[in-house]
Amino acid sequence: MDRIVSAEQHTVEQRLVDNVVASFDACEDPRLKELMTSLVTHLHSFIRETRLTEAEWGSAIEFLTAAGHITDDVRQEFILLSDTLGASMQTINVNNQAVQSATEATVFGPFFVEDSPEIEIGGDMAFGAPGEPCWVEGTVTDTDGKPLSGALIEVWEADEHGLYDVQYDATKRAARAHLHSSPDGRYAFWGLTPTPYPIPHDGPVGKMLEAVGRSPLRASHLHFMVTHPNCRTLVTHIFPEGDEIGEKDAVFGVKPSLIKEFARQPATSPSPDGRLLESTWSQVRFDIVLAHTTM
Amino acid sequence: MDRIVSAEQHTVEQRLVDNVVASFDACEDPRLKELMTSLVTHLHSFIRETRLTEAEWGSAIEFLTAAGHITDDVRQEFILLSDTLGASMQTINVNNQAVQSATEATVFGPFFVEDSPEIEIGGDMAFGAPGEPCWVEGTVTDTDGKPLSGALIEVWEADEHGLYDVQYDATKRAARAHLHSSPDGRYAFWGLTPTPYPIPHDGPVGKMLEAVGRSPLRASHLHFMVTHPNCRTLVTHIFPEGDEIGEKDAVFGVKPSLIKEFARQPATSPSPDGRLLESTWSQVRFDIVLAHTTM
Repeated sequence: MDRIVSAEQHTVEQRLVDNVVASFDACEDPRLKELMTSLVTHLHSFIRETRLTEAEWGSAIEFLTAAGHITDDVRQEFILLSDTLGASMQTINVNNQAVQSATEATVFGPFFVEDSPEIEIGGDMAFGAPGEPCWVEGTVTDTDGKPLSGALIEVWEADEHGLYDVQYDATKRAARAHLHSSPDGRYAFWGLTPTPYPIPHDGPVGKMLEAVGRSPLRASHLHFMVTHPNCRTLVTHIFPEGDEIGEKDAVFGVKPSLIKEFARQPATSPSPDGRLLESTWSQVRFDIVLAHTTM
Repeated sequence: MDRIVSAEQHTVEQRLVDNVVASFDACEDPRLKELMTSLVTHLHSFIRETRLTEAEWGSAIEFLTAAGHITDDVRQEFILLSDTLGASMQTINVNNQAVQSATEATVFGPFFVEDSPEIEIGGDMAFGAPGEPCWVEGTVTDTDGKPLSGALIEVWEADEHGLYDVQYDATKRAARAHLHSSPDGRYAFWGLTPTPYPIPHDGPVGKMLEAVGRSPLRASHLHFMVTHPNCRTLVTHIFPEGDEIGEKDAVFGVKPSLIKEFARQPATSPSPDGRLLESTWSQVRFDIVLAHTTM
């Protein structure tokens, strides 16, 4: 490929960028104008820097077309694309700047539902979903260390087959629940030890991952959304230490601060709440720190 | 919006970019790796520079989803998007670097068909399409000024209602033809004086143009594709001087060197080939210069 760009050619290319940017001059919404200007500037830089060929441009159009056609009410290929390019995670980073000791956010994912069953502190959110039992406990505090009473803690995860309840049946509710923190900010529940599973990879995003030599597997994780008045809502996961996927998570959701020790326990060993377990089980501590919304 | 990015926050964001770039390390196709690396670097810069909000990210996903759903065999919203962001034109620029005196290229557009009728030099390509007659003539030479005999000249344009033949009926052929240059490199034909028309604007791209205060109109133009052995195929348009759209062309196809004088002629004035015209007509000269493929 000829990468030599003459001064004349540079002028032709830059004049086009200037014209496209100027086309947004009449935009009355300053934020939209800013977004479009930045978008086209980067888009044109990408084309110019890579000397994109017309055939490659055509492949990009075909990719987007195929992504559009596989997308429906339950499959969202454009979100998968954003996730696998790290764009979703970067948007979350930008909107959840690290605040002192506040727990870090990560991707929301497509499997949250509003109407999870309520459980008591110490209750079981598995509701029969298959997997190794896991005792999860911790506190909810603000960044000053003050315990937060009555924080809404919503938790959800895939079962040991790598599937969420709604992937079996849109009305099924299992490995999903919500509970509230106690007056001293404590919470605890039984869930499942997280296991890795692939994002849907039978579409254009799956083909892209294969072409670039990437795995569609997500690092094992347990989802949390924690809400309290006057605090910034936290959407995050916790990840088991030593997981084989780790930094190779297909959607770049792993942050070092969110990796926790899920301590494996032998069968019949005494559990924190006296439950008798016939299988191995695990135990993890996750202390949640919420940022104030005013920060 | 808080645009203050702390050193710690910068580290979090940059670490993600580095991880995403590193995810392509195992890609065995060096060109694909280069494209993906450049793409994600610019995508992340866009998100970080604009401090993209989660709501704005959601709007982008909705836009792409709607574009995917309106796209079918005859409507290609992703090409319209590329066209209206100048990405199509920039790709053409990058792949058709200016060569000495060679005629400049512009966008191909979606309305070319392979099986246009053949006409003789001086023939009429309108085939009954409504519009003001236009006499088009010129030469086809190489960049050394040598006349090119037998160059294939394919021409197509919208009628005075702003519609191409295939927009009425996929099998209709009008305002479309091909002819060959003479042994001394000359060509001439009757066509229609070009008029402005809108790109399809009833979908997400039309909404985007409206939101940013842009017109969906294309500058008036007449399409050419010129092919000759040993020369680079030229895909271009000519644009009438003084057109009201001009630089505001919705797809950024106008280049100064492609603007030509379409001289308006009174009714019944003598035409170059002795044809008697009862209406006004126009006349344009377009000398075509092809670059050698070896350059």
